[in-house]
Amino acid sequence: MNVILASTSSLFGGNYLEYLTDELITLFNGIDEIIFIPFARPGGISHEAYTEKARDFFSSINISVKGLHEFADPTEAVNQAKGYFTGGGNTFLLVKTLHELGLMGVLSENIKQGKAYLGCSAGSNIGGINMKTTNDMPIVYPSSFDCMGLVPFNLNPHYLDPNPELKHNGETRETRINEFLTQNTIKVVGLREGNWIRVVGDKITTEGSEMSRIFEPGKSPYELQPGASLL
Amino acid sequence: MNVILASTSSLFGGNYLEYLTDELITLFNGIDEIIFIPFARPGGISHEAYTEKARDFFSSINISVKGLHEFADPTEAVNQAKGYFTGGGNTFLLVKTLHELGLMGVLSENIKQGKAYLGCSAGSNIGGINMKTTNDMPIVYPSSFDCMGLVPFNLNPHYLDPNPELKHNGETRETRINEFLTQNTIKVVGLREGNWIRVVGDKITTEGSEMSRIFEPGKSPYELQPGASLL
Repeated sequence: MNVILASTSSLFGGNYLEYLTDELITLFNGIDEIIFIPFARPGGISHEAYTEKARDFFSSINISVKGLHEFADPTEAVNQAKGYFTGGGNTFLLVKTLHELGLMGVLSENIKQGKAYLGCSAGSNIGGINMKTTNDMPIVYPSSFDCMGLVPFNLNPHYLDPNPELKHNGETRETRINEFLTQNTIKVVGLREGNWIRVVGDKITTEGSEMSRIFEPGKSPYELQPGASLL
Repeated sequence: MNVILASTSSLFGGNYLEYLTDELITLFNGIDEIIFIPFARPGGISHEAYTEKARDFFSSINISVKGLHEFADPTEAVNQAKGYFTGGGNTFLLVKTLHELGLMGVLSENIKQGKAYLGCSAGSNIGGINMKTTNDMPIVYPSSFDCMGLVPFNLNPHYLDPNPELKHNGETRETRINEFLTQNTIKVVGLREGNWIRVVGDKITTEGSEMSRIFEPGKSPYELQPGASLL
């Protein structure tokens, strides 16, 4: 496989995808066109507007972008594509739409056969086993929480450390993931902003500027340095 | 109806339910025993341990507490009960369990016929039309997101204002609720900690120490003072 699952599309104050430019040139090496999957629709913007945002960035590295919503037969479009990018937004909306269109398995198969895939945030969640560790609000009801399983664990993008100064009783991110582990036996990778998971062949590593926080059933959470293996 | 839907069970630094003591004496006036619904299981604690926590508080106002998990026939237990308290935790786990046991409708009917109900956090979410505005992590897959509809809107407990100093690209609570409104036409009450919704007969008001933030389709969010009508 040849996959990047990034915590976020943009660093604070940075431009869209800019911090990943070098990585994306490598990921999509030899590919002049990719399909963008705009279904997560951040803030409810149109598929067209979201695709345009992706197109703007990828034109800077000489890759053209087609939105998956533009195709009459999206299954055929996925099967014909050379590479994919799924943008962030709401994971429930993304997963619901992919299941409704019957695309979750089709996309997964193509990527497992070696086609390049970039996911950001919600687009990274769907690379995990299921979406049960998303931070997003359940604004729609998907027919299933199952995802592509490109990696043998779940992700928590935008992972945020507890703020000891916050006088608020909402659960911290760590508490939420520990609750997940009371009901599931799946490993979770807390991906801080600035980090991504890289899959090359059968190697899976955590990359980027931050440590990644790993949660496993029956263990205390622990940290992995950039470059560390996730298998 | 005679209902309290509270944002949180405890104020920061306060004891469990303490800030609601006077309200709960009024809510459960004339009632010497209630049923506690422990299914949200905060942090994965046992139903027994969670019920004990509720029992500790209610003994201070001379109300005894039985955990719903203690009954062989939970439907019968709900039908026989004089009042209810559903504690917070994970809304997905709570809603999944209530649907599995066939209790969502039974509980709703009893409350709509006048039995006293207290919900905190996840226990308040289930008083809304559906759970699509919860903050919780989808750690399990419920058979439906539908809730009791005690009030003609949805709730967002632990509502938190955006922190302008946070250098993080995860969605703010307001962004999430606005995303909900792109997919749904249901009003949402953002309940800051310290606030609750009070239903007495056919009157619904927002109460507590804070303003409540209201989100409606096609309107800018607006604030309501404590005591303001929510109908």
